[in-house]
Amino acid sequence: MFPDVECSRLFARKGYKVALISRGPESLNKLAAELSQHGEAAGFPIQDYSPDSIRSAFVAIRTHFPSSSSPLRAALFNVGYGIWKPFLEITDEELHKSLDANVAAAFAFSREVITEFLKLGFEDPSEGGQGGSRKRGTLLFTGATAGVRGNVTTSAFAAGKHGLRGLVQSLAKEFGKQNIHTVIDGVILTDRTKIAFSDPDREANLDGRLDPDAIAKTYLGLVQQDSSALTWEIDLRPAHEKW
Amino acid sequence: MFPDVECSRLFARKGYKVALISRGPESLNKLAAELSQHGEAAGFPIQDYSPDSIRSAFVAIRTHFPSSSSPLRAALFNVGYGIWKPFLEITDEELHKSLDANVAAAFAFSREVITEFLKLGFEDPSEGGQGGSRKRGTLLFTGATAGVRGNVTTSAFAAGKHGLRGLVQSLAKEFGKQNIHTVIDGVILTDRTKIAFSDPDREANLDGRLDPDAIAKTYLGLVQQDSSALTWEIDLRPAHEKW
Amino acid sequence: MFPDVECSRLFARKGYKVALISRGPESLNKLAAELSQHGEAAGFPIQDYSPDSIRSAFVAIRTHFPSSSSPLRAALFNVGYGIWKPFLEITDEELHKSLDANVAAAFAFSREVITEFLKLGFEDPSEGGQGGSRKRGTLLFTGATAGVRGNVTTSAFAAGKHGLRGLVQSLAKEFGKQNIHTVIDGVILTDRTKIAFSDPDREANLDGRLDPDAIAKTYLGLVQQDSSALTWEIDLRPAHEKW
Amino acid sequence: MFPDVECSRLFARKGYKVALISRGPESLNKLAAELSQHGEAAGFPIQDYSPDSIRSAFVAIRTHFPSSSSPLRAALFNVGYGIWKPFLEITDEELHKSLDANVAAAFAFSREVITEFLKLGFEDPSEGGQGGSRKRGTLLFTGATAGVRGNVTTSAFAAGKHGLRGLVQSLAKEFGKQNIHTVIDGVILTDRTKIAFSDPDREANLDGRLDPDAIAKTYLGLVQQDSSALTWEIDLRPAHEKW
Repeated sequence: MFPDVECSRLFARKGYKVALISRGPESLNKLAAELSQHGEAAGFPIQDYSPDSIRSAFVAIRTHFPSSSSPLRAALFNVGYGIWKPFLEITDEELHKSLDANVAAAFAFSREVITEFLKLGFEDPSEGGQGGSRKRGTLLFTGATAGVRGNVTTSAFAAGKHGLRGLVQSLAKEFGKQNIHTVIDGVILTDRTKIAFSDPDREANLDGRLDPDAIAKTYLGLVQQDSSALTWEIDLRPAHEKW
Repeated sequence: MFPDVECSRLFARKGYKVALISRGPESLNKLAAELSQHGEAAGFPIQDYSPDSIRSAFVAIRTHFPSSSSPLRAALFNVGYGIWKPFLEITDEELHKSLDANVAAAFAFSREVITEFLKLGFEDPSEGGQGGSRKRGTLLFTGATAGVRGNVTTSAFAAGKHGLRGLVQSLAKEFGKQNIHTVIDGVILTDRTKIAFSDPDREANLDGRLDPDAIAKTYLGLVQQDSSALTWEIDLRPAHEKW
Repeated sequence: MFPDVECSRLFARKGYKVALISRGPESLNKLAAELSQHGEAAGFPIQDYSPDSIRSAFVAIRTHFPSSSSPLRAALFNVGYGIWKPFLEITDEELHKSLDANVAAAFAFSREVITEFLKLGFEDPSEGGQGGSRKRGTLLFTGATAGVRGNVTTSAFAAGKHGLRGLVQSLAKEFGKQNIHTVIDGVILTDRTKIAFSDPDREANLDGRLDPDAIAKTYLGLVQQDSSALTWEIDLRPAHEKW
Repeated sequence: MFPDVECSRLFARKGYKVALISRGPESLNKLAAELSQHGEAAGFPIQDYSPDSIRSAFVAIRTHFPSSSSPLRAALFNVGYGIWKPFLEITDEELHKSLDANVAAAFAFSREVITEFLKLGFEDPSEGGQGGSRKRGTLLFTGATAGVRGNVTTSAFAAGKHGLRGLVQSLAKEFGKQNIHTVIDGVILTDRTKIAFSDPDREANLDGRLDPDAIAKTYLGLVQQDSSALTWEIDLRPAHEKW
């Protein structure tokens, strides 16, 4: 799981063993140490978001958390490469970074996760998670407004986040039959959140910005959905947001 | 609350007092009696879904459940008039029934609910519900696939359910600022559910049809969303559904 | 054809006989007189947009323009009942006006037009119109932004225009097989146009407001589409519009 | 212009000088020779769709068709890398090919085209094209159903085509103010067309498959749109298509 901090905390408190993948080993180890107070957690630092790095992280995870005793049941892809610039100032390299981080890394991550899910039967109540929902597992992706609507400075970012959305919808349709639940939060305003936090009035208004705790709670709700009624895309926005 | 049966049960078990509005006093009273085993519940039969009937039901509700001791915090509009027929066979009267039940009744219901919500402050933890989410209340609507996509025999039904969706999105934007949460389940396959239940294989496949329990659980999750991260539209479909 | 003035002029100049339906006989007769300079045109005033009035207008049209010599090949529904008001100020009557004008009138109009189309074979080049496109006819509807997105004062209007869009999409799917082309301009900013014209700077900026001539030209292009590549929904907005 | 053959023919017949970019010099030269019978046309073969190759093609175009005498007014990006395979069989290399051809090549192409457009004033009637529409130019992209909806074997293709759509919508919003028209055909069924042509019944049914002539005609109509009413996305499907 790419660590959305609050989400990691909530899942750890709920009894999940948590494997964290990220660049930046220091913050990763700090978070793993904190989570270990609630249960089992470990960090798996990688150098970059290349498919090879992601594959190697999963090899390490399977060694540390063997499938037999620690079946994978929920995964979150929370990587994002955001870039807001006039189109003519964006370099080919910046576009590639957006496509690599937002799409290709998600593709490689999904391959590892889905391959694991397919090895499993449905989750059993004895596993301590969401047994009874007739799922092999849930694969969550953090989207962005730019994945649903392009805008004036989002040419490279919207290309990446739209690409992610196309990938996730395809996975939702391809693997639903095998009781694998794939979901993207289609309209989280991470792009605006950035702006929001430079505005002190908005910072102070709990209803004017997305609260990571509230997002984590919704993520948990999605993982708890039962195979008879799954959501593939969910919008989340502050009550006071204009949209 | 127009009684989606499972949803009523779940909310009653969670400690909500439940007011049921419906035509058909018998099934209504039966359900109210059942719910009363978990807590307070009462039925408010109406003759039709006209604005006047809906208004009078709310007058009766406020007498039975006074605002002071029983503030309204969650409401579900679950009325639906479904009609699947070739366009040229649909009468003007059938179209009007679709518009009246799917749109005009929702409009009148929303007016009563929102007027109540606006009299209230944010919910307090002492009320026994979702205090702490900084909401005045949550107003839920049951949508349909036909509210998102028209199809070959849905001209009158899609007109009604699209109309409902336009109404709900307008309410979500108009009243978000006042911490009123308005949400529609945009792609519940109620239209297909109908078909599903005439197919015994599908009936037997828990992952091939929408389970009312699972829908109710998701509704509760929406009511529990916090004002910092609200959803205005949610899709729900069985894992094995082709879409 | 409900007379969008510029559209009527363009079709008259292209050799179409034009039948105009509208309330307000004076402006109707004036337009019919003007169009008669280019070819055949006649006005058919009605008292209201009720299904009965629309039906009687078609009876009169068929008398004046008999199907045998004047087959119906293109029709435009351009009625709109716009209302922008805070939700709690909108009366049940205003909502009904929106549903009646935007949805029920369109339903009745479509019935008359499609019934006519189904009596015809494909258009022949000798008819002087778009022969060769393998169509029975084209049925155009004027939509609005409110048909695609609800907003803060659009609860009644968005309900009507969303309803229209659900109807049109259903018709497009149901009658495509019979080479009847149904299309709505999904995002014409008629709602904003209203605002635009009270702003003199915007009035002066040809690229900041929708020009009826330009819309008419696009309508003609849709009528000229061939059955192998039809559009069911088209967005139109000024180049300088922010969206 | 990446040569959609029929579109090239139509624009050549309308008096446009046509510059064709493509891999495969033989078919390119053959088409250029054919178009030269109608007016000026030249082929600019490239080795691959890398940004560098695209840039060098534009250098060659500007030498052959100098901006002063041959201002660029319309451009079509018609490259597509289609791939339909189960997700777990798609390699990282195939994904990259999809992102490179569908997104990165479009990005590089757009940069060259928009840079040219920005050097120009509005088109003048004396130029022989669409003078009078108050445009600097029109930039067209061929989309696909997979750019709007993912499906069971489209994970890599939908990622690429959704990415393209995010890019195009961003460009439409960023450069509309400068009277540059950017448009994508959002729902051309190129993916299904492939299937259609292996079905002889469908092959024979002119209304059951997209006709390149009909698409070209619609492209021309978009180029002719006036800055007061622009379309950014257009769906095109055969009348007999089920959707």
